[in-house]
Amino acid sequence: MDKTPLYTLANMTELVLPNDTNTLGNLMGGRLLHWMDIVTAISASKHSNRVVVTASVDFVDFQSPIKLGEIVILEAKVTRAFKTSMEVMVKVWAQNLQSTEKRSSNQAFYTFVAVDQTGRPIPVDPVHPETEEEKELYESAMRRRELRLISAKRMKPEDAVHLKKIFLT
Amino acid sequence: MDKTPLYTLANMTELVLPNDTNTLGNLMGGRLLHWMDIVTAISASKHSNRVVVTASVDFVDFQSPIKLGEIVILEAKVTRAFKTSMEVMVKVWAQNLQSTEKRSSNQAFYTFVAVDQTGRPIPVDPVHPETEEEKELYESAMRRRELRLISAKRMKPEDAVHLKKIFLT
Amino acid sequence: MDKTPLYTLANMTELVLPNDTNTLGNLMGGRLLHWMDIVTAISASKHSNRVVVTASVDFVDFQSPIKLGEIVILEAKVTRAFKTSMEVMVKVWAQNLQSTEKRSSNQAFYTFVAVDQTGRPIPVDPVHPETEEEKELYESAMRRRELRLISAKRMKPEDAVHLKKIFLT
Amino acid sequence: MDKTPLYTLANMTELVLPNDTNTLGNLMGGRLLHWMDIVTAISASKHSNRVVVTASVDFVDFQSPIKLGEIVILEAKVTRAFKTSMEVMVKVWAQNLQSTEKRSSNQAFYTFVAVDQTGRPIPVDPVHPETEEEKELYESAMRRRELRLISAKRMKPEDAVHLKKIFLT
Amino acid sequence: MDKTPLYTLANMTELVLPNDTNTLGNLMGGRLLHWMDIVTAISASKHSNRVVVTASVDFVDFQSPIKLGEIVILEAKVTRAFKTSMEVMVKVWAQNLQSTEKRSSNQAFYTFVAVDQTGRPIPVDPVHPETEEEKELYESAMRRRELRLISAKRMKPEDAVHLKKIFLT
Amino acid sequence: MDKTPLYTLANMTELVLPNDTNTLGNLMGGRLLHWMDIVTAISASKHSNRVVVTASVDFVDFQSPIKLGEIVILEAKVTRAFKTSMEVMVKVWAQNLQSTEKRSSNQAFYTFVAVDQTGRPIPVDPVHPETEEEKELYESAMRRRELRLISAKRMKPEDAVHLKKIFLT
Repeated sequence: MDKTPLYTLANMTELVLPNDTNTLGNLMGGRLLHWMDIVTAISASKHSNRVVVTASVDFVDFQSPIKLGEIVILEAKVTRAFKTSMEVMVKVWAQNLQSTEKRSSNQAFYTFVAVDQTGRPIPVDPVHPETEEEKELYESAMRRRELRLISAKRMKPEDAVHLKKIFLT
Repeated sequence: MDKTPLYTLANMTELVLPNDTNTLGNLMGGRLLHWMDIVTAISASKHSNRVVVTASVDFVDFQSPIKLGEIVILEAKVTRAFKTSMEVMVKVWAQNLQSTEKRSSNQAFYTFVAVDQTGRPIPVDPVHPETEEEKELYESAMRRRELRLISAKRMKPEDAVHLKKIFLT
Repeated sequence: MDKTPLYTLANMTELVLPNDTNTLGNLMGGRLLHWMDIVTAISASKHSNRVVVTASVDFVDFQSPIKLGEIVILEAKVTRAFKTSMEVMVKVWAQNLQSTEKRSSNQAFYTFVAVDQTGRPIPVDPVHPETEEEKELYESAMRRRELRLISAKRMKPEDAVHLKKIFLT
Repeated sequence: MDKTPLYTLANMTELVLPNDTNTLGNLMGGRLLHWMDIVTAISASKHSNRVVVTASVDFVDFQSPIKLGEIVILEAKVTRAFKTSMEVMVKVWAQNLQSTEKRSSNQAFYTFVAVDQTGRPIPVDPVHPETEEEKELYESAMRRRELRLISAKRMKPEDAVHLKKIFLT
Repeated sequence: MDKTPLYTLANMTELVLPNDTNTLGNLMGGRLLHWMDIVTAISASKHSNRVVVTASVDFVDFQSPIKLGEIVILEAKVTRAFKTSMEVMVKVWAQNLQSTEKRSSNQAFYTFVAVDQTGRPIPVDPVHPETEEEKELYESAMRRRELRLISAKRMKPEDAVHLKKIFLT
Repeated sequence: MDKTPLYTLANMTELVLPNDTNTLGNLMGGRLLHWMDIVTAISASKHSNRVVVTASVDFVDFQSPIKLGEIVILEAKVTRAFKTSMEVMVKVWAQNLQSTEKRSSNQAFYTFVAVDQTGRPIPVDPVHPETEEEKELYESAMRRRELRLISAKRMKPEDAVHLKKIFLT
């Protein structure tokens, strides 16, 4: 059976409690990063049927404050699998319980490595994107991967084939 | 706009961490009751657009243990609204990350009262069930309500019109 | 030695901290259910000298709000033991530290199963009620048990011998 | 009405969960100190009907390890009140749920100051000891108080009238 | 007085407790991200003397697992201030308590915005780097800022003056 | 290599979150005692390269309230080692993030015993004090030790050779 991004969908809903907030009553960025890590880990586990360990998280932008008592909705899907690793995208919304609309809050890309019980990396199946958005994310995953390798000093910028194209157009 | 049960759907996913477990490594019942309370409160808030307070929880049966490291999936929907209160059903599944199937774990009925900022009860809209299951739950809500009133000693068993039918058939 | 309910008495006192409360500053129902689960588990362990797992919780009614900074007093006693399970009653009071009186808040019945180290059910001793209240609770335990079996769809309403009497008088 | 130590009795029971333990599976001293602080604060609040703030804790000795899954039983009583402060003694026991006996674990003396809503100290009533043990604790409170003042460098050792007697006999 | 990076140094030490770990007994990435957020927020507050809110976190690479019972050492310093925002670098080490050496684990760049009590951004002082490393970080901050603006879709890649140089050499 | 107090230095910084405070918004004494226990345990582990268990904590004085949103800075150093135990001094400061100065808050002495994996005490190396303050603390450690033995009723006051001198001058 081909594994699709939809198959890896993981949802999470959290209520912002007092201990999650700073002195302005806003959700602390670090707590949100923690929740994002858990929901993306669940998604990566669904794809690999393995214990997974966080390998990296890409740039995360905190656009608008989320307040005490609001709910946070997280949705994660695997976008692409590499040999033993997976890239997972998580989208975050916030919703005031007294309103009827959820507003977009964040999105981020986490990567995970599937491991066996001794913690050793283990190969994972490829992902088969279906929708347009999934296909676009599947393609762009190569550029984000290069950016990660450069950031981790495991690739020289001049060797970033896919990434270079963006800067040279 | 008629409010349907679907409109009040709330999802939650939790990872069973060490502090959630007893010495056998199983999720403690009390922790699960806590998560069920949060997801049903979110559902009731979606229906009422109000702060809600837990009024009661019906009988909860813990059928099979959920283990450390498993994920718990909760899904809540409002089944019926009364004057200022709402009945919310929550279904719980557990999933071992190494398997591809989630297994049914629990279900329960919570009731909530919608309140204003001073904590006073405030009327809520009726619920419009759509599917067969929703309609059946809407009907049987009257019986569960009677059982609650009897349990809380606010109704005499002999006055429980809907409930009586069950025992007399 | 005959084991009495008194022998299984377990007390717990908790202070309502910010993270235990909703946005109105009231103790969340789910947190209270969690505390009730712990104190009743302790009581059932005292009776059985075994690890116990929560089997069910009966209807719980949240009558009056408990506020941030108040103390919550819980008291649990085993009311009756069946083959491998025990019914435990817990009473809850709340107290404002600036006042001298505690007010009644809730009561509930939890059931637990005694298990061995592999999680298998294991027989427990009978309970010997002493006071009038204990004897009444011991008797009515049969009716609550039938209600549980019906709720869990493990008994048909028409077979509930003890329960039926209530509805037929 | 004369306030007795019994009137200020506060009980607390805690279950040792994974996050309370060190890598040997033993309850961390700091967690126990936290629980002792809460139960003694409740006791001091009962005596004063006021918000209380921890002023100090005397020497605490951790005699024997308490294990994961055991229960911790704490019992606090005010021993003596000074102008705006109270000394509270807390006794701690541990119990393995599989055994029928609780074993003595610790005891300690905490002091609290009663404050008004702006945090200013406010006078408290005297304590009227009843039993022999309470009377002995009431008397020895003076010596412990001197020891505290010396430790906090607010009294010179040579001025410690009650304490001196012990070393000079 | 010129504010130096040293002036903004913030240290944090955490012990990896059971609830911080996954089923392999390794520190979860999300928990570490949370701690990094707190220590960098403290550093940014030291520089600005203001409440700060997390604006973003750059790529974070989790190189090697940190185990249950190990200690995590975090060190944060502001590298550069822009108009109302600050970039803070955090370095993370892990140490097994039975060994004498700490090993490098992670590093990351967080950005914060200084806000007034209503949550509105407010200007901050410039940073004056002193050491060679601080000067290098001060310079490269421009490139990382461009990368952030591109990632947040607030700058087109072709306008990234400083960043472009890297790819064109 | 001679082990100095500096070698055992452990730093910790904590942010006071809502759940750490009482109803006046002040850090609870018990939470601070918990943090002090962790940072001193880290220091004792650095000296002994062993798992350590809290043996006792001396008198702790809570001089001035620490408020919600302030940061707490803890610094611990081993002052002297005995056969299998170590005395660790911890100093605590508080800092309002909007101010530039940290204010002294507390100090305390914790003692720890180094243990092997079965929990049995194991000898530790001596400490070599360097500065004047360290030497003074090394000397006075004998008196504090006698006071502990008396408090724990393991020494008679009249046998406290070092302590007696203080009261007899």
